[in-house]
Amino acid sequence: MNDFLEGQSKPTTTSSDALAIGIDLGGTNLRAALYAGIDDARQTDASALVTLAEASSKVGESRDPTTVVRRLGEQVRELKAAAGNSTIPVGIGFAGMLEGKGGFVVNSPHLHWNDVPFGRLLREELADERVGVFNDVNAVTFAEYTLGSGARADDVLAVFVGTGIGGGLIAGGQLIEGATGCAAEIGHTKVVIDESARPCACGLRGCVEAYVGGHYLQRRARGELAGGARSLAVSIAGGIEKVNPSHLDKAAARGDDYSLDLFAEVAPLLGTVLANAVTLLNPSHLILGGGMLSRTPVLRDHVECALEVAINPPAAKQLTIVDAALGGRAGTVGAALLAYDRYSY
Amino acid sequence: MNDFLEGQSKPTTTSSDALAIGIDLGGTNLRAALYAGIDDARQTDASALVTLAEASSKVGESRDPTTVVRRLGEQVRELKAAAGNSTIPVGIGFAGMLEGKGGFVVNSPHLHWNDVPFGRLLREELADERVGVFNDVNAVTFAEYTLGSGARADDVLAVFVGTGIGGGLIAGGQLIEGATGCAAEIGHTKVVIDESARPCACGLRGCVEAYVGGHYLQRRARGELAGGARSLAVSIAGGIEKVNPSHLDKAAARGDDYSLDLFAEVAPLLGTVLANAVTLLNPSHLILGGGMLSRTPVLRDHVECALEVAINPPAAKQLTIVDAALGGRAGTVGAALLAYDRYSY
Repeated sequence: MNDFLEGQSKPTTTSSDALAIGIDLGGTNLRAALYAGIDDARQTDASALVTLAEASSKVGESRDPTTVVRRLGEQVRELKAAAGNSTIPVGIGFAGMLEGKGGFVVNSPHLHWNDVPFGRLLREELADERVGVFNDVNAVTFAEYTLGSGARADDVLAVFVGTGIGGGLIAGGQLIEGATGCAAEIGHTKVVIDESARPCACGLRGCVEAYVGGHYLQRRARGELAGGARSLAVSIAGGIEKVNPSHLDKAAARGDDYSLDLFAEVAPLLGTVLANAVTLLNPSHLILGGGMLSRTPVLRDHVECALEVAINPPAAKQLTIVDAALGGRAGTVGAALLAYDRYSY
Repeated sequence: MNDFLEGQSKPTTTSSDALAIGIDLGGTNLRAALYAGIDDARQTDASALVTLAEASSKVGESRDPTTVVRRLGEQVRELKAAAGNSTIPVGIGFAGMLEGKGGFVVNSPHLHWNDVPFGRLLREELADERVGVFNDVNAVTFAEYTLGSGARADDVLAVFVGTGIGGGLIAGGQLIEGATGCAAEIGHTKVVIDESARPCACGLRGCVEAYVGGHYLQRRARGELAGGARSLAVSIAGGIEKVNPSHLDKAAARGDDYSLDLFAEVAPLLGTVLANAVTLLNPSHLILGGGMLSRTPVLRDHVECALEVAINPPAAKQLTIVDAALGGRAGTVGAALLAYDRYSY
């Protein structure tokens, strides 16, 4: 499935090779890649996408906008030089909240940015207008839609459950970014609205992420186990402070009451959120990905059961639930594809 | 606001007048209208839309597909004759569940239809391919988006609370119909998933419609009042069997405990559903309409409070909540507009 992600080297290229640079700027890693063959990949076969050059590094300690922008500038110039071509569109998949189409960052918890005109700074640094900044989950969704597990379907909902929960929407063959660029924040839809609602890092309470996001689930379990709850997960993990959702899942598979009770509480919340989004959007493909669900098969089964119960039957009729197919490079691929579509002229 | 809906007469027309026929086939009424000036209305001013002819009648007792299709055929031929023009696109706004783009009716509770190839039958009856069948709420939403309270915004969510709850979505300037044509069924998103979940006419339980749809709210209140609950609404209405949501709202405005408790339970459910849809779709306009909310101002206030509490703050930033502007003719206008866009060639 991931064949096209294997890098292949070419000496120099021309713009007829359908080139774009994709950058995935997350909380920990900075990945960048120069892709060619975008038109062919889209029209014929995803394996036609060629990685001409790529680089990966840690974001590191210096995270002020000036430093990050300069570093991205150097990275982009290197990749452009590798192609012998200076007119390549550049897309950045960005982990943070954007506003509008110009790449204005409202906030990024990872980089500790607030109100940074990131897109403008990048365009100035590169002296080039062909630079787009996109929400990182939207970029991943667009990659899956274009070349991955949702390939060629016009209506796709993608949900990624890792430390948090992110989403991406394709409707009528378009990436849906919303009026101010913050559509698809499915992790912050509310599932509990009474006084018991758990607090979320977004500042509100009762978000589904605060129940089923890996970070929250892990912290809650460790807290409850430290407070006296008993679970097989502790011996599987080798200590309370090592327990993660995967250990809870292994314990659940062996009939552990604590883990099963926890899953019985939280799985229906995520399942219902997914069902409600499918009822609203009627996608043909629901793509599930992210670091947690693939390592928690019992939890995922419970989620899918709850989804089946709550979904509007006509919307369920032709729904296919699929795993994300592109893995870790979906971010750079998606950012490159989005930039290519917007800035190839 | 509704000036353009006032009919104006013209003798004969040509296709340069940008004509389309819109039909609104509901559970009670059959409305049909011939509109002209669609291009001008869209490009300059909604008041440029002219109603050349219109007709309204009851759907009546004979609701089998053959009878309804023949009757629609006669209606359309009359309207086409009024324009002296036989190449006019025809749109039907249909209260029922459709599948695909061809107008296949999966079911219509009002007409008691199941699996009827309505679009094909209509095209055969009219010997014309320029006939589109659309979900009635989608047609209304498209009219509001194009010429009404959401005019010219690219991202619009419309929610209509009447006897039931229906929705319509515009995203990226497109009507979102979903993979099988049943998107936007916001009334059937689930708000209660435990054993107490109320049954819905859709066959499932816990749908927001089963709590806040006018039919359900009224039936529940009458049942509880007949069972011994006490409310001012009874004297306002002149008897338990006359109580409707508007009476409950008037009682709530006067501090009636029963009505206030009921609203305190159900308003947050609808408010949260609206907030979650806005969090997911990030529209610039949330259009509220339908027969109930305009007559239940106290309930609506409670709903809007709950919406404000639960919405993802960045999605709330530029959200405008507006009333539907086009009234009862939005259905024929929207069906005509959709048909015009799809079949003017």
